[in-house]
Amino acid sequence: MNTRFYNARILDKDFQIIQGELHVVGNRIAYIGPEKTQDAYGENAWDREIDVKENLLIPGFKDAHTHSAMTFLRSFADDLPLLDWLNKQIFPMEAKLVPEDVYHLSKLAILEYLTSGITSNFDMYFYPEQIAKASVDCGFRTVLVSPMNDFSSSPREMEEDYIKYNAYDPLIRYCLGFHAEYTTSQDRLKEVARLAQKYQAPVFTHNSETEAEVRQCIERNGVTPTQYLDKLGVWEYGGGGYHCVYMTQEDLDIFKRRKLYVVTNPGSNTKLASGIAPVQKMLDLGIPVAVGTDGPASNNCLDMFREMFLVTGLAKLREKDASAVGADQVLKMAVSEGARCCGLDDCDCLAEGKLADLVMIDLHRPNMQPENNLVKNLVYSGSKENVKLTMVNGSILYEDGLFSIGEDPEEIYAKANEIIRKYRA
Amino acid sequence: MNTRFYNARILDKDFQIIQGELHVVGNRIAYIGPEKTQDAYGENAWDREIDVKENLLIPGFKDAHTHSAMTFLRSFADDLPLLDWLNKQIFPMEAKLVPEDVYHLSKLAILEYLTSGITSNFDMYFYPEQIAKASVDCGFRTVLVSPMNDFSSSPREMEEDYIKYNAYDPLIRYCLGFHAEYTTSQDRLKEVARLAQKYQAPVFTHNSETEAEVRQCIERNGVTPTQYLDKLGVWEYGGGGYHCVYMTQEDLDIFKRRKLYVVTNPGSNTKLASGIAPVQKMLDLGIPVAVGTDGPASNNCLDMFREMFLVTGLAKLREKDASAVGADQVLKMAVSEGARCCGLDDCDCLAEGKLADLVMIDLHRPNMQPENNLVKNLVYSGSKENVKLTMVNGSILYEDGLFSIGEDPEEIYAKANEIIRKYRA
Repeated sequence: MNTRFYNARILDKDFQIIQGELHVVGNRIAYIGPEKTQDAYGENAWDREIDVKENLLIPGFKDAHTHSAMTFLRSFADDLPLLDWLNKQIFPMEAKLVPEDVYHLSKLAILEYLTSGITSNFDMYFYPEQIAKASVDCGFRTVLVSPMNDFSSSPREMEEDYIKYNAYDPLIRYCLGFHAEYTTSQDRLKEVARLAQKYQAPVFTHNSETEAEVRQCIERNGVTPTQYLDKLGVWEYGGGGYHCVYMTQEDLDIFKRRKLYVVTNPGSNTKLASGIAPVQKMLDLGIPVAVGTDGPASNNCLDMFREMFLVTGLAKLREKDASAVGADQVLKMAVSEGARCCGLDDCDCLAEGKLADLVMIDLHRPNMQPENNLVKNLVYSGSKENVKLTMVNGSILYEDGLFSIGEDPEEIYAKANEIIRKYRA
Repeated sequence: MNTRFYNARILDKDFQIIQGELHVVGNRIAYIGPEKTQDAYGENAWDREIDVKENLLIPGFKDAHTHSAMTFLRSFADDLPLLDWLNKQIFPMEAKLVPEDVYHLSKLAILEYLTSGITSNFDMYFYPEQIAKASVDCGFRTVLVSPMNDFSSSPREMEEDYIKYNAYDPLIRYCLGFHAEYTTSQDRLKEVARLAQKYQAPVFTHNSETEAEVRQCIERNGVTPTQYLDKLGVWEYGGGGYHCVYMTQEDLDIFKRRKLYVVTNPGSNTKLASGIAPVQKMLDLGIPVAVGTDGPASNNCLDMFREMFLVTGLAKLREKDASAVGADQVLKMAVSEGARCCGLDDCDCLAEGKLADLVMIDLHRPNMQPENNLVKNLVYSGSKENVKLTMVNGSILYEDGLFSIGEDPEEIYAKANEIIRKYRA
C-alpha cells in the first residue's frame, strides 16, 4: 500500500508542527515536507490519496505495558479491595483461560487500541503463540514480554520463545521478562539474569507497584525490589519496570545509572488505589518514562488519552504544582519514549525512513478548538473521538470508526461474551 | 418531534437496565416499557423511528459547574503555577471579552457538551443574555447562575436577571449566586442572603477550592468560607458549593444540615493541582454530590466521561481503598444529583412524564465489550466515542458525529479562533 497524505499538519521529528504532505511507500514513511506533485512518483503511484483537511498527523501511541487478553475481565469485578479483587475474582478466572480464547480476547484489545490511536503494545500475558497470531492477523504491532513466574512458563520456555518470536514476523518482537519479584524465586531470577547476559538483552517486570509489595520484599530480602533485582543482575543490559509507584532515591539512582525505563500506569494505579508515581522526579533525574494502560481488568480501558491526562494531572496533584510534567513531555512519553522502551526505535517519530505507524487526529471537533496550542489540546482535551485514522506498518487498520483487521468486530464481541459466559457457568 | 426508540436497552428510573422501547412525544417521555405496536398512536405518529440496535439509552449527563464561554482560553496557558495562570494569563484576557463573543464561545462549548452526552449545564459566567441566547438558539438547556463579585454585576442586577431569565424560555433557568467569598464583600453577601430570603431560593458559589482560599478566609473572618457564608444566611433556602476540596467536619455538617449540594470538579482540581475532594466522606454523611467540568481554561475539556472516572479514581487514591465511590454512585451523581442540584428535577431520570433529555450509548464498540456490567463499562471505560446520539428537550441535537444546532460547527470554530486572535493582538 502506497498512501499519500496531503493538505496535512504533521508533528515532525522535533515535535514541531509543519504543513505539507506525508508519503507512505510500503510500510515506511518516504517523504515529509511541502506539497509535492504526483509526477515525482509516476502515474498510479498511490493506492490512496487522502486529503487530511488540515488535520494533524502524529506518530502512533505506544502502549508500553498491558495485558491485552484480560479484556474478558473488564468490569467483571471492580470497586473491591485490591487483594480480594486479585485473589477471589481475577486469579480464579484467569485459571480457566485456554489458548484459543487468548487469541480472540487479544483481538478485542487490538480493536480498542486502534480506536485510541495506539499502534503497538508491549504485551505481558500467557500463550504468546495466540497473542502473536492475533496481532499478525490484524496487522497490529506487538512486542511480547515473558510473564514468567513460579507458576507458569520457565526460563527455558522464555529462551525458546525469545528465539522463536524474534524471528516470527516483522510485526512481532519478544523481550525477556518475568511477572514480578514477589512471584518469582531467586533461582528463576538468576536464570533470567543469565539469559540477559547471554543475549545482551533488556529485561522488564512489574516493579514496586504497591507499598505492601515493597515492604514485603524488604522483609524477605532486606532491600527494595529494585535493589534486589539489580543485585541479581537482571538489568545488566537494561530494560525497565512497570508501575514504579514506590521508589526510594537509591531505586531511582539504579534506574538512572542503568538507563532503565519506567513505564507508568496511572489509570490502573488510580483505579486500584495503588498510589501516584513520582514522575516529575524521574524526569528531573533524566530517567526515561513511557506510558502504559495496564490490562483492561484493572484500568478498565485501553485509552492513551486518559493515560496522558492522568500522567500530567496526577503529577500536578502529587507535586502540588500546576506546572509539573507539561503536555509536551507527556506526548513524547506516550510516543517516542514508549517506542524506545519497547525496542521500536524505528517507530519513535514521523520522519523519512521510519516505519509508518501513525494517527490522523481530527481537529474539526469542538474539543480541539480554538487552536491555541495543538499539543496541549491533544493532551488536555483530546479523546478517542479525535482518532480519525490509525495506520500500522503502512496499512490503515481504522478509519472513521470502521476497522480493517480481517474480521467483523461483531464476531469478536460475540466471542468475548461467549468466553466470559462459559467461564462464569 | 415525536420519536420512537425501539429495540433498546434503557437505564430506568431505578438505574436498572430494561429491554424495550422509549417514546418521546413533544419534549417529554411518553412511554418506557416492552415493545409496543405503532397502532396505539395511529398512523404517522412518529417523525422518527430509531432502531437502537440493543444500544443503551441513558439520561443525559448534567454538567453541574462550568464557565462555558472560557472555551477561548482552552490551551491558552497551562502548566503554570495557579496564581501566575490566573493573574497573568486568564484575568487579562477575560477583561477583553465583549458580549457578542460570549455568544459564539458558549456555542462552541455546547457543541462539546453534546459530544459527551451532556444535556444541560449550570453555567456561571458574564453576559447572561448572550449565554441564554446561545443555548436557546442551539436548543440546549442551561441553568444560569450569577457570577457576581465586587468587580462585576451587582445584587440589583442579579435580582433583575433572576426575574428575567426565569421567564425567558423553557430551556433556561436562573439561580442566585456569586463568584466566591474571597471576591465578594460582606455587604454584597448580605444582599445575596436577602435575595435568597425574598425568593426562598438556593444560592451557589465557588467554595473552598484551594487550601490558600480557606486559610485566607480564616485570617479575614476567623472561620472557614462555609461557616462564614452560612452565618451570613446565604444558604437559608439551600444551594451549594463548587469544588469543596478543603472541608472541615463542621463545614460538612453545615452542608448536611442545610441539604447543600457539593459540585465536585475533579478534572479542574487535578490540572490546577488544587487537591482531591473528600467525596467518599461526603457520601457517607448523605451530602448530595453532583459533578461538573469547570471551565475549559482549567480542565481543559468538557467531558463527563473523564470526570466520572476521576470522581471514583481520585476517591480511591485519597482513601487508599479500591472500593471507594463505586460506579453506580458516580453515574447517579453525574445524572440525577446533577439534575436536582440545578433544579432540573424533571430531567433526573428516564421515566414517563420526564423531559426527554437523553443519550444513546453505542455498545457496539470495543471499550464496551464484553458486557459484564454495562454501568461499570460506562463509568470505567466509556468515552465520547460511545455517544451515538444526544437529545435535549425532545430534539436530537447530535447524532453519529453530526450536529443539528442551527449553525455549521466550522463557523463556530472560525469565530472562536478569530476571537482569540483578536484578543492576542
